[in-house]
Amino acid sequence: MNVSELGEFGLIELLANIVDETKNPDDVPWQRLLIGIGDDAAAWQGDDGVLLATTDSLVQDTHFDLKIVTWEELGWKAIAVNLSDIAAMGGTPGYALISLALPGELETDNVSSLYQGMAQIARQFGVAIVGGNIASASKTIINVTVLGNLESASALTRSAAMPGDQIAVTGYLGLSAAGLKMLKQNLKFDADTTQLLRRAHLMPMPRVNEGQILLRHGVKAAIDISDGLIADLKHICQASKVSARINQNALPIHPAVKNNFKLDYFQLALKGGEDYELLFTASSQVMDRVKKVMSCPVTVIGEITQGKPGQVTLIDADGRSIPWQKAGWEHFKSET
Amino acid sequence: MNVSELGEFGLIELLANIVDETKNPDDVPWQRLLIGIGDDAAAWQGDDGVLLATTDSLVQDTHFDLKIVTWEELGWKAIAVNLSDIAAMGGTPGYALISLALPGELETDNVSSLYQGMAQIARQFGVAIVGGNIASASKTIINVTVLGNLESASALTRSAAMPGDQIAVTGYLGLSAAGLKMLKQNLKFDADTTQLLRRAHLMPMPRVNEGQILLRHGVKAAIDISDGLIADLKHICQASKVSARINQNALPIHPAVKNNFKLDYFQLALKGGEDYELLFTASSQVMDRVKKVMSCPVTVIGEITQGKPGQVTLIDADGRSIPWQKAGWEHFKSET
Repeated sequence: MNVSELGEFGLIELLANIVDETKNPDDVPWQRLLIGIGDDAAAWQGDDGVLLATTDSLVQDTHFDLKIVTWEELGWKAIAVNLSDIAAMGGTPGYALISLALPGELETDNVSSLYQGMAQIARQFGVAIVGGNIASASKTIINVTVLGNLESASALTRSAAMPGDQIAVTGYLGLSAAGLKMLKQNLKFDADTTQLLRRAHLMPMPRVNEGQILLRHGVKAAIDISDGLIADLKHICQASKVSARINQNALPIHPAVKNNFKLDYFQLALKGGEDYELLFTASSQVMDRVKKVMSCPVTVIGEITQGKPGQVTLIDADGRSIPWQKAGWEHFKSET
Repeated sequence: MNVSELGEFGLIELLANIVDETKNPDDVPWQRLLIGIGDDAAAWQGDDGVLLATTDSLVQDTHFDLKIVTWEELGWKAIAVNLSDIAAMGGTPGYALISLALPGELETDNVSSLYQGMAQIARQFGVAIVGGNIASASKTIINVTVLGNLESASALTRSAAMPGDQIAVTGYLGLSAAGLKMLKQNLKFDADTTQLLRRAHLMPMPRVNEGQILLRHGVKAAIDISDGLIADLKHICQASKVSARINQNALPIHPAVKNNFKLDYFQLALKGGEDYELLFTASSQVMDRVKKVMSCPVTVIGEITQGKPGQVTLIDADGRSIPWQKAGWEHFKSET
């Protein structure tokens, strides 16, 4: 079987099993480990607090198209997607390592712009870029590792959703996918809409403060939306061994998406991915507290239920379930 | 100017300047930073001890050739080169994150073998593999980040060499480059030599314990030999603003290299690279202590002198300097 056939998530499970079977549980790092492979970031007990680490890469022609994105935007995004993983744990990012694979014929001005974009978001979030690596390759690959820490003793995790929890999301859904569609198909909108959609896709703003607020106010389960609302909700449901119901009419779809993508705005919001909003679950009491203190929109979009682990059902205005195919996308599988 | 023309080290300097100019020195991570871009690993003050982080990648057709290396060896080496960076700081590795870029048509059995090799060395050094990332790409790139910590308050660093210090190296030089040459040119040797050279190149043993011993016994300056003896000694001399003299006849070249590569064993030892031995400098008193406690060979090969920062001179048996061209290799420059 090849990697495409098994798919990204099957492969991660396979590799996690190898690591688990071969580890020596008596080694100190394993004894201190709180969250390993399979969440947004790893977490372990440091001497005085919980440490977090996450890594993510942007691959030319898989994740970005140099005809669409500027090098500065690319630098921003490469850091942003990692900060978003730290945000999904409720953590504070501190240090970043950058590993670049670059073609030798690339102009150094472009690499400078890439780093300007990285430095910009790093400064905005108080992150120090402290090292990295440069290697030669036929295409550009930007791998970023971000290390952070937690204020509390335990992190937000994918595995803490409970039946009865409300499901909520920060901000809006579908803006990033709409931005990608606009850029790829060269769609024309007014200047504000164009900028809104472009920034949503190319310079997402990770919800770092919001993740910390969630943790501080008693939320336990969260993930950031990178693969798509449905796909990421499935990750929560699988890890928490629960089901979920989503009310289609409750989805916070931005007017710029609703008005300009009339035929597929639901698809963009449900499956588009790369929103880098936080998707989280909590009791209604906790949710009410969170709504009061968050400075960004928080929308309840459904609820966690008992049922088949990983099952997500979409409900229409009349309470009927809407049939649908496989949601989101995996890095090695095309949609069925 | 493009990346090849500027070269790896010029590019690193350029990017380090961007980071330095754009940072907010009031941010806590910057205030806690002890060693940033430009050493083997980054180091910062944690709440209770110094933390270390390093990242390194192996790129298909740049760093490895799948006709030569098995997937298991590749997994070993991808972790080993990072552990070697932690060793060069005198640290203890703790956690590893693995970021893979893989072609979709790759057999999953190969990825399993890759992880078996990673898990094997991780277990041997008490390292926990705690997360990572998988992305689709046309060629395989394995990026590893290793996090560690220090027993002491300060790390071994490239910038601490002092005029008068002796220069020493652990183990032997040139075995890895000889192994690469054997594998590429399909040279035939007896079984023991073949295995010795193959392992030196494909399954290097990082000097983690040795680095800790160096730090414990008062050594301050060290680097691991990845680019080549001369190139890495230049890194120390540049960072420490000193010169160095190497006695050609003192080089610890393994008999398997001397006897089987009669025409170029000096080149292999001086410029071959990827030995993953530790190159370090210390006063003769400290050096004497270190020699007594190390279980591997420690050979004094020269001395640090006052002079042009970064200048390395090679001395023959009669004390005459040997003219030579640019040593080692950069990832984007071919040798002149």
